[in-house]
Amino acid sequence: MERIRDIAHLSAVELRTPDLEATTDFFVRLLGLDEVRREDGVVHLHCWDDYEGFTLRVVAHETSGIGRTWLRTAGPAALERRVAALEERGHRGSWEEGAPGLGPTYVVPDPDGHLLALYWESEPYRPPERLRPSLKNQAAAFPGRGATVRRLDHVNYLARDVAANGSFLADALGARLSEQIVLDDGTQAACWYTVTDKSYDLVHTTDWTGLRGRLHHIAFATDTREDILRAADVFLDNDVFIETGPHKHAIQQTFFLYVYEPGGNRVELCNAGARLLLSPDSPPVTWTEAERAKGQAWGLKTIESFHTHGTPPVGE
Amino acid sequence: MERIRDIAHLSAVELRTPDLEATTDFFVRLLGLDEVRREDGVVHLHCWDDYEGFTLRVVAHETSGIGRTWLRTAGPAALERRVAALEERGHRGSWEEGAPGLGPTYVVPDPDGHLLALYWESEPYRPPERLRPSLKNQAAAFPGRGATVRRLDHVNYLARDVAANGSFLADALGARLSEQIVLDDGTQAACWYTVTDKSYDLVHTTDWTGLRGRLHHIAFATDTREDILRAADVFLDNDVFIETGPHKHAIQQTFFLYVYEPGGNRVELCNAGARLLLSPDSPPVTWTEAERAKGQAWGLKTIESFHTHGTPPVGE
Amino acid sequence: MERIRDIAHLSAVELRTPDLEATTDFFVRLLGLDEVRREDGVVHLHCWDDYEGFTLRVVAHETSGIGRTWLRTAGPAALERRVAALEERGHRGSWEEGAPGLGPTYVVPDPDGHLLALYWESEPYRPPERLRPSLKNQAAAFPGRGATVRRLDHVNYLARDVAANGSFLADALGARLSEQIVLDDGTQAACWYTVTDKSYDLVHTTDWTGLRGRLHHIAFATDTREDILRAADVFLDNDVFIETGPHKHAIQQTFFLYVYEPGGNRVELCNAGARLLLSPDSPPVTWTEAERAKGQAWGLKTIESFHTHGTPPVGE
Amino acid sequence: MERIRDIAHLSAVELRTPDLEATTDFFVRLLGLDEVRREDGVVHLHCWDDYEGFTLRVVAHETSGIGRTWLRTAGPAALERRVAALEERGHRGSWEEGAPGLGPTYVVPDPDGHLLALYWESEPYRPPERLRPSLKNQAAAFPGRGATVRRLDHVNYLARDVAANGSFLADALGARLSEQIVLDDGTQAACWYTVTDKSYDLVHTTDWTGLRGRLHHIAFATDTREDILRAADVFLDNDVFIETGPHKHAIQQTFFLYVYEPGGNRVELCNAGARLLLSPDSPPVTWTEAERAKGQAWGLKTIESFHTHGTPPVGE
Repeated sequence: MERIRDIAHLSAVELRTPDLEATTDFFVRLLGLDEVRREDGVVHLHCWDDYEGFTLRVVAHETSGIGRTWLRTAGPAALERRVAALEERGHRGSWEEGAPGLGPTYVVPDPDGHLLALYWESEPYRPPERLRPSLKNQAAAFPGRGATVRRLDHVNYLARDVAANGSFLADALGARLSEQIVLDDGTQAACWYTVTDKSYDLVHTTDWTGLRGRLHHIAFATDTREDILRAADVFLDNDVFIETGPHKHAIQQTFFLYVYEPGGNRVELCNAGARLLLSPDSPPVTWTEAERAKGQAWGLKTIESFHTHGTPPVGE
Repeated sequence: MERIRDIAHLSAVELRTPDLEATTDFFVRLLGLDEVRREDGVVHLHCWDDYEGFTLRVVAHETSGIGRTWLRTAGPAALERRVAALEERGHRGSWEEGAPGLGPTYVVPDPDGHLLALYWESEPYRPPERLRPSLKNQAAAFPGRGATVRRLDHVNYLARDVAANGSFLADALGARLSEQIVLDDGTQAACWYTVTDKSYDLVHTTDWTGLRGRLHHIAFATDTREDILRAADVFLDNDVFIETGPHKHAIQQTFFLYVYEPGGNRVELCNAGARLLLSPDSPPVTWTEAERAKGQAWGLKTIESFHTHGTPPVGE
Repeated sequence: MERIRDIAHLSAVELRTPDLEATTDFFVRLLGLDEVRREDGVVHLHCWDDYEGFTLRVVAHETSGIGRTWLRTAGPAALERRVAALEERGHRGSWEEGAPGLGPTYVVPDPDGHLLALYWESEPYRPPERLRPSLKNQAAAFPGRGATVRRLDHVNYLARDVAANGSFLADALGARLSEQIVLDDGTQAACWYTVTDKSYDLVHTTDWTGLRGRLHHIAFATDTREDILRAADVFLDNDVFIETGPHKHAIQQTFFLYVYEPGGNRVELCNAGARLLLSPDSPPVTWTEAERAKGQAWGLKTIESFHTHGTPPVGE
Repeated sequence: MERIRDIAHLSAVELRTPDLEATTDFFVRLLGLDEVRREDGVVHLHCWDDYEGFTLRVVAHETSGIGRTWLRTAGPAALERRVAALEERGHRGSWEEGAPGLGPTYVVPDPDGHLLALYWESEPYRPPERLRPSLKNQAAAFPGRGATVRRLDHVNYLARDVAANGSFLADALGARLSEQIVLDDGTQAACWYTVTDKSYDLVHTTDWTGLRGRLHHIAFATDTREDILRAADVFLDNDVFIETGPHKHAIQQTFFLYVYEPGGNRVELCNAGARLLLSPDSPPVTWTEAERAKGQAWGLKTIESFHTHGTPPVGE
């Protein structure tokens, strides 16, 4: 059966933080995003090569964690088809007016409670004069600051039932499973799904606490691995907690660096090189418990907190 | 109207060369491909992360130039739809048995005479023991040799009538125009089309000689810009002619290096960083004559031979 | 004969500019230096890993050009020896109180009139609180801004008589000739001298105008070639004129990018990789006219303005 | 007091291996060295930008470990001065005929028993036709293979008494202490000495076994950090044991990767960027036990085997 391509891409994420100023400063000064809008307790930030109006919405909140995940559809009919498919399967969401610059948005929780926000209409980003780029095929001027991340890359959710959430992504959204961890008892412990030609966009990892709706991390793509090495020095001299990396994942082969932003959420900088999943029919790659235990690609042991820390935090 | 996604990706190219041994050596020793099959006058080469059986077919020929361009469809029905669309528009091709490992292949010339070969069925690549990779999500072991290109990236054809060939890609194959050069008199001088989430896969540039079916260049993607800088040193010490670069294109923003392989064909090493065309509806970017005259992104003047050299060569 | 090592290294340069603010902004915001001191018309800037108090002194002036070049000696006796050697050879300078933080300084013109300032005593740099580095073996926090140049690398003077200036560096300072261009008529057209284990620190190139005391460029070293590629994007989006590069020099094999700072002075970003001149006795490498005409390492033609533009400018 | 500069640089190392073929293959195929000479049980290898005739001598031996360390002096008088200084201090060595291409060599053990071999005369390297470089300021053609290390960078010995060995380097050879670890009880646990403008060339680390003459690792410098990341993939697909890295040391700030060559010796790939120790008088940087316990620059914990594995191995 041919692949459904109704979701064009992951477009934005809403991050909750108990320290709005520090979190905003982290993304602006150290990651290179630009502040495009600020209201009471809500800041919208934009990545330099994002054609959409915002890439990250930071909201003041009593805890850390993730709010909405915006997904833009491939067209108006694609949006209708996905809403119909969701409702057919009993996933009832609701239509909202949408975030600034976005048209009607269908908000629906995944089985674990994370809110997905599907939309088609949007006003494209227009750079302010100070950020007018020299090249017309670029959204905004290159910031030259910190990690200079190019775009939002993926979201990694924590879920009580990984398989149920993966099936939801496949059935209701048409996402494709590219890699997974399957434990010896047959349980799917983590799954990587793609809605594009990238090898993953949406990931679910087991939440051992039994809670719902939590976040493992959000990730931003850099153009080079060197951007990530350089960012590590930036983090070092700005007292940002580096959890693990830089190193290369065995699963998906991503070059990575994980840090905690001042609000407590885990943020990954990632680079995939020229890797894409262009094959229309290659089967998912399955990793066993034993393989996962071998650690990362070049031998780094997976850090313990990777299995325990999520946001909002739970008695860590 | 939503985009057609019937072509999954560009999968392989056939290159003609008057010096089979030297051309093969160039791709194997300096670019890092592996020889997977050799018959009389025909060598099949494979890129280390290509899931298909071959990436490049080198054929002994009296001149340089391009033979077939293989395009894999998104499924069997997609292949039928494309063949129907082609024939409906009067582009009659013929079914062939296919290259080694490929199923039934529909071969059809574009308006300029370049042969496109559409197929669905194929035997996935199986690495020989000496090239078994350590990570199961990788096709073959990393060669660690020369430019270590990861995959075929795009083909840039020369065409007498660029607009006619671009329309063919759009109408018959469902490709999407991402960037173009339009001269002051309204003529489209070059067009970049994509069939994936990459910002281009198939390019047409004006052939000023009035000939048909010629090649401007084929391009291979590297994981990093550093791979390209390193390759420049490899080319320098192996007497490979470097035509221009390394530098960054203004159009498409690709980091590039152009060389001539020993058979005379122009080969590009390219790196796009994390750049993708994820927007489903951003309009094509149009560059004017004046903008094109400004040269490349960081100010390098476009080299004269870029407008005159194609293969097979014509009284250069 | 064993090498004299009385000059420890090139430590700072004084740059003249008709636009003090714009020039200062260029070095601070785009190259990553920090402003350490500002008086009427004089700004002292510091590179993040310079143990000395300042790396660059920018002075308001009616024209562009170079003022002093500071050279720190290997010790107090070394300073005495060099002053004696200079005076013995008829190069009479004068003792001055020294720039802020520097002890007694002997200022002497080279044969072409460029002012060299030799000193031993200095107060080491102490970072302000906002720039306290995390690692104690680093002078200041990593700026993470623009090109983040690590240190001043070399000065390239223009000279009416290259050979005379080179001999001066060798005889009076004990510098060592590592590479040179010798024209077919035997004239030395350019010479690269080193006072360290780097392959060059001080360079003289022929000034065809017949004027004296002019500057070809000053250069800052980056840790990686990627820093230079990234800086090119920063320059592109900040309207900085890129003269040539990024590319690799054949002579000395430096990876380079040349720009004009807003005051008109040419500034190079350079990276030598792990290249050092460790051999105590390898003879100078001599390049002929024909070899120089071949251009840069990977084939880039040497840009015309490289032979004509110097500062202060002369009827360009 | 001014610094003595009688040792020009570390020039070569002798490595013992129980598997001559595998060890040689590792250095040639994966690190990019070239075999220049082979006799019964002794192979001489050369790094592509080494002006001397060999960089590494691999010798068949019943165990792993290090043999001689060659140090070239700054001239003939410098050699005499060092021999006199050694003998004056009671370190009696002996004159030998020298390795192939080297003149009279004075071989003397350091207090821990590692053999240092000082020489002045040598025949410079002449590349064979197949390795003639395109640029005349380069020793041999760029290999484009594996890690393509540019040169030998440093040797890290294990020593029963670190302080005694460091004093020997300082007093007898004129080496300069740049960084050190001093335990809470005042014991010097490790010391980094330089004989050049690099920040270290010879290192001693405590050997907890109480044995003598053992090796911690030898290190080769790459031109870029990317060379090291790429090498990690090469090692991964060639079954080379990666002990730790890639990461950045806090001490000396070196970007590193440690592997074990097939003979068991630890080999480091290192990159210092543009970092040099140009200051003639900056005091040694001292790291405390608590600081060392914080691990590497970006937070990686120091791997346990780093404190236990040396060669020849001792009941690990």
